[in-house]
Amino acid sequence: MDKEKEIVITSRIRLARNLKNYKFPTKMTDEEANSIITNANDVINGSGLNFSLSYMKDLTELAKNVLIEKHLISPALAENKNEGAYLLSPDNKISIMINEEDHFRIQTIGSGMCLKECWDTSNKIDDILEEKLEYAFDRHLGYITSCPTNIGTGMRASVMLHLPALSITNQIDRLLYGVCQLGVAVRGVYGEGTKSMGYLYQISNQGTLGASEETLIEKITQIVMQIVEKEKNIREQLKNNNVDELEDEIYRAYGLLTNARSMSTDEAMKLISYLKLGKEIGMMESVQNKDLYELMIKIQPNNILSFANKEISVKERDVKRAELIRNELSS
Amino acid sequence: MDKEKEIVITSRIRLARNLKNYKFPTKMTDEEANSIITNANDVINGSGLNFSLSYMKDLTELAKNVLIEKHLISPALAENKNEGAYLLSPDNKISIMINEEDHFRIQTIGSGMCLKECWDTSNKIDDILEEKLEYAFDRHLGYITSCPTNIGTGMRASVMLHLPALSITNQIDRLLYGVCQLGVAVRGVYGEGTKSMGYLYQISNQGTLGASEETLIEKITQIVMQIVEKEKNIREQLKNNNVDELEDEIYRAYGLLTNARSMSTDEAMKLISYLKLGKEIGMMESVQNKDLYELMIKIQPNNILSFANKEISVKERDVKRAELIRNELSS
Repeated sequence: MDKEKEIVITSRIRLARNLKNYKFPTKMTDEEANSIITNANDVINGSGLNFSLSYMKDLTELAKNVLIEKHLISPALAENKNEGAYLLSPDNKISIMINEEDHFRIQTIGSGMCLKECWDTSNKIDDILEEKLEYAFDRHLGYITSCPTNIGTGMRASVMLHLPALSITNQIDRLLYGVCQLGVAVRGVYGEGTKSMGYLYQISNQGTLGASEETLIEKITQIVMQIVEKEKNIREQLKNNNVDELEDEIYRAYGLLTNARSMSTDEAMKLISYLKLGKEIGMMESVQNKDLYELMIKIQPNNILSFANKEISVKERDVKRAELIRNELSS
Repeated sequence: MDKEKEIVITSRIRLARNLKNYKFPTKMTDEEANSIITNANDVINGSGLNFSLSYMKDLTELAKNVLIEKHLISPALAENKNEGAYLLSPDNKISIMINEEDHFRIQTIGSGMCLKECWDTSNKIDDILEEKLEYAFDRHLGYITSCPTNIGTGMRASVMLHLPALSITNQIDRLLYGVCQLGVAVRGVYGEGTKSMGYLYQISNQGTLGASEETLIEKITQIVMQIVEKEKNIREQLKNNNVDELEDEIYRAYGLLTNARSMSTDEAMKLISYLKLGKEIGMMESVQNKDLYELMIKIQPNNILSFANKEISVKERDVKRAELIRNELSS
């Protein structure tokens, strides 16, 4: 399972839920929105859990963007003109976004391939809320959601994959196209649109209707494991047939990351991705104890701004990013 | 003078001489060629000097190419179909090429700006030869040479300059064009034609007629010192106005040189050139004790082949080059 954890970075289960007696977030009043926030907070923290509540209106743009880069909240919640808020578990693994597109988005994130565990956790939180609050639910359709694509289970199962070997051998596009035919959605992570940064991809289910949560999770898991197998095979092939070129690329990445004095997000993501590959195929002893995915999050633009702790230009940000990377890799 | 030594890498004085009673090398027989070699060797080593004699025919192509890359012999001598040879001083600073384009090419190389010292040395060797052998000399024209451009003093004074600051700020072409107008020749070193590798340029006199050696040397020296001033000024400007970009480039060069597993000559020359600039403007403490110009010679293709000590492909050569650079910079 270790190898899979390297390729499968995170698993995520998100449940979309709405309350019966309230309008959807796009239509509701601020009073309704606040009432939902209060109710959710009371139910969750009244159940013995210890989640922290944060209101979007209390956060700076920077703080919101940092949370987005950390995948703790969605861009939609940050942009929401209505009263938005979120409840966060002490370990940051469970978040309940309130008044995003739906009244609730219950999200659990875990490391590696753990959709079932995430589903169990999200399901428990869901049960706690459902016990006290009346959901919009239809016997035939299932959970009613703001967007029809989420109706049914209201569940989205997502897996974030790091696929450098498939990417640098130009096999990724064909593979992902094939995967899309199987009814799953693929998108780049951190990139604009479907563009990927750092060879990170997110695979998630497209349909939420007509199958149980377990069936959907089983399907995604099978597809992901096939992609993981493919990535592993290409890594083996690269090691056997192109070891010199690969080693050169990986060491060059290390040389630049540990020496550059200025670096864009795009370049840093690519180089850290090479380093991560090098670490995982045993070519980079010196970074064996580094969490390189965590580093990928830390070097995102808003995380850098927050690290700098003051207003800085894009140029200064690139300098700070290079400094942070050097410190992280040398420490 | 320290700063000038950094920018002026080597000075060289070459004297073209021919013997009166022999045809020019392009026309002469092998017997004549061998007679000249024997005579020169007898005169030089009979005078108390201890020069080693090497025949071109005894050297492999690789050995000849290594000598060319070290600037000890010219490509013309290596290619000569006639009997070519050279006499070399124990410290490798003085070489007498025999039966190149002219019967003798007496060459002295020194570090930094030292044309006058090189002239003194070449002049002494010239005197030793002239005392015993009868030169082709005309009272009006001066020394008679195979190519009319060398007639007169038969002297070429050359200075090798390292001009990274002028190069990276795109001011080099205009400057060199201006310099050409002053009657001096400029060419890139190691590059094809006038292309420069590693921002190394060679400045030399074009005319050899109608002025004394001292006057020609004075003229070249003045022009070189002006270029050196210009390079120094741009370095100061870069440090004052573009320190971040410059530092980034220099540290990236260091990161790549100390980590890459494969590297072409062209890339290595460029990166070492940046490192040399970094060292000289005080940005690169870790290479303060390295002779980076020597490294530039060592990484030339034939020097790498000779270091590898067996037949290797271009790809393998790039791997060896990267290995050599890592070793040299880490030692």
